[in-house]
Amino acid sequence: MTIKANPERALRDLYHLRSIGTYKTGVHRPTLSEDDLVTRHWLVDQLKDIGHEAWIDGIGNVISRTPATGNKLLAGSHLETQSHAGWLDGALGVVYALEAARAVVEAGRTDIGVEVFAFADEEGHFGSFTGSRSLTGELTESDIDQRADRTTGRPLRQAIADAGLSGVPRHRVEPARYVGMLEAHIEQGDWLESQDLHIGVVTSIVAIWQYKIVFEGVQNHAGTTRMAIRKDAGVALRRFCQRVEERFPEVCGERSVWTVGQISMEPGAPSIIPGRAEMILQFRDDDMETLLRLEATVRELVAEANAAGPCKASWETTNQNKPALMDQSIQSALDAGGAVYAPGKHARMPSGAGHDAQMMAQLMPAGMMFIPSIGGISHHWTEDSTDADIMRGAQVYADAAARILGA
Amino acid sequence: MTIKANPERALRDLYHLRSIGTYKTGVHRPTLSEDDLVTRHWLVDQLKDIGHEAWIDGIGNVISRTPATGNKLLAGSHLETQSHAGWLDGALGVVYALEAARAVVEAGRTDIGVEVFAFADEEGHFGSFTGSRSLTGELTESDIDQRADRTTGRPLRQAIADAGLSGVPRHRVEPARYVGMLEAHIEQGDWLESQDLHIGVVTSIVAIWQYKIVFEGVQNHAGTTRMAIRKDAGVALRRFCQRVEERFPEVCGERSVWTVGQISMEPGAPSIIPGRAEMILQFRDDDMETLLRLEATVRELVAEANAAGPCKASWETTNQNKPALMDQSIQSALDAGGAVYAPGKHARMPSGAGHDAQMMAQLMPAGMMFIPSIGGISHHWTEDSTDADIMRGAQVYADAAARILGA
Repeated sequence: MTIKANPERALRDLYHLRSIGTYKTGVHRPTLSEDDLVTRHWLVDQLKDIGHEAWIDGIGNVISRTPATGNKLLAGSHLETQSHAGWLDGALGVVYALEAARAVVEAGRTDIGVEVFAFADEEGHFGSFTGSRSLTGELTESDIDQRADRTTGRPLRQAIADAGLSGVPRHRVEPARYVGMLEAHIEQGDWLESQDLHIGVVTSIVAIWQYKIVFEGVQNHAGTTRMAIRKDAGVALRRFCQRVEERFPEVCGERSVWTVGQISMEPGAPSIIPGRAEMILQFRDDDMETLLRLEATVRELVAEANAAGPCKASWETTNQNKPALMDQSIQSALDAGGAVYAPGKHARMPSGAGHDAQMMAQLMPAGMMFIPSIGGISHHWTEDSTDADIMRGAQVYADAAARILGA
Repeated sequence: MTIKANPERALRDLYHLRSIGTYKTGVHRPTLSEDDLVTRHWLVDQLKDIGHEAWIDGIGNVISRTPATGNKLLAGSHLETQSHAGWLDGALGVVYALEAARAVVEAGRTDIGVEVFAFADEEGHFGSFTGSRSLTGELTESDIDQRADRTTGRPLRQAIADAGLSGVPRHRVEPARYVGMLEAHIEQGDWLESQDLHIGVVTSIVAIWQYKIVFEGVQNHAGTTRMAIRKDAGVALRRFCQRVEERFPEVCGERSVWTVGQISMEPGAPSIIPGRAEMILQFRDDDMETLLRLEATVRELVAEANAAGPCKASWETTNQNKPALMDQSIQSALDAGGAVYAPGKHARMPSGAGHDAQMMAQLMPAGMMFIPSIGGISHHWTEDSTDADIMRGAQVYADAAARILGA
């Protein structure tokens, strides 16, 4: 095996990206912000330096092409970040892909190639997986017309124009071009750390099922309305949540997670009994039977709430995708790379977070690799991984990429 | 007894006020809004028509004075409304006071007088009891500098200027001038209706004790953070609320009420475990021992939450006043008026809502009278009372006012 990453160079690139949109020890680079565009142009330049054709497409994806005649691997992740978030979430997978592409070129291999992509807006500032949905052909022009930045309200169409990308064609992935897709990412959880492991080989990406559950009662005066006749939508919501906490552990899988991240009550004043309350309940698992069992429990608890009264409960599904299974041979390539650079310290695991790889898995064999997150912290500027883990990961990644390419 | 209200005229005045700032079948007249000022000037004109001196003071209170040499009664309520709220909340008590003032004048009594006040901002658009706190001397100039409209953000100082009231002195109530203070109001609850009663004679105004309770956990990714290691501040908040629902019924009084009207979670996104959650818990009762028992329970439950972990709970008092006892002889006058116009259909009861009368009760004997609210609906544009109840109330009120004045 003559294809080897330069782990110091990968680390240096990550430190460089951290200097663009720095926020405390993390970064703030929302999709199509000025800082985000600086990183995209930087990546294009790096790719051109190693002889790739590279450009930013009409939705902000960075695309690259090699003249390789043989096997090609699609590799990458995303460059934008959540607001005021970590320096590695996304950037790590892009830099590993870049490093693997360089390693192939530096090994003098012109027959095979790693084609680096930076998927736009994986973090969903303009909706879910904007860039990779454009690459798969799912995102329509009318979707683009309707989307806007969830924080600033800037329309996506305007953001594209501001980036100088109006009229630039949106790229479509050609699945037949690739032997597969590889993405690296920080774990964003604490499992690798808690098991003293260095590398996670992802078996599947969990599905996210999400529901809006609404409770309707009667808004009234908090001083003059007797307890006995109240129809307090907030009380109904909290009782429902309590039942979720009781019932879900009875039906969940070993790695199921569920979250109520959002609650609103109307009118939301200290002296007014809430007439309406709304929550978002989300759960994740990589097993369809478990997902269906959890959903059946939601249905059962909504019915139970309606039977108990006095408020009316209703629910609607707001997200429901399928678990994405990672390709077996790519998992084996990652195992093999792990055996070289992290012997005894690599293991298979599901991904609890969504990633662009799940979109690409619809079109081609896809795989993912994780490195540990210190304390499992994610989507926060304190997110971090050790330099040793970052450098080791670059080596495993390039090694696995070479194996997938049949080098 | 020659002092009698003209109930049709009172009803007509209320319908007139309903036409100013109409919202569906209710009204929208925030404090010092244009429509609110129209009603204040209208009231000044009505009072001048019956020979009162009348004006709007430097905080927006409508003040009146009669030349009466003998007993004088301070009477009134408020003219502004909650946002998009009912037509009677406040206006009823002002019109009843106006009608009683007219009845005294029309009876040819120049020795005694009903002096009508419309207290500014009882509904608290600029904070709590802005107008009556100014009348008692509690509101400082620096309070005024700091207050702003809770909805629009317009500073109180600016609102006063916009109303043309800059430089107008703020009136101070002279307690020695009055034999007492009388306020009428809709019940805002359903007790009178449920008991088939027409008139409520208020015995006390409940105290409102209110707390901000904060739960601090760790914000993290909702997909990658295992259930076992989560520190979900939203879960902690809901468990606390559940314990309130369990414990409060064990220690509360017969008419205690408690409400969680406001909850917020940070960052409040479906895929992020809340790192911080905050709620406002309010309870009301007219008995100090009950209030202290409920507060002790809050203290106990916060300690219990901290002992249970994994989130940290803390609390602070945001409101804590005393129950206001209504004057016995004013209650007797209202009983007597009820016996004339609503025989067998009047009863004593506490007020679950706060009213300007509780501020005036600090300075002089004060009393309150309620008429029924249809369905107990309050602080909503569907709030209503029957014409028959409204007209009957005007008669009882004028009768009681005359008795209090010793007519």
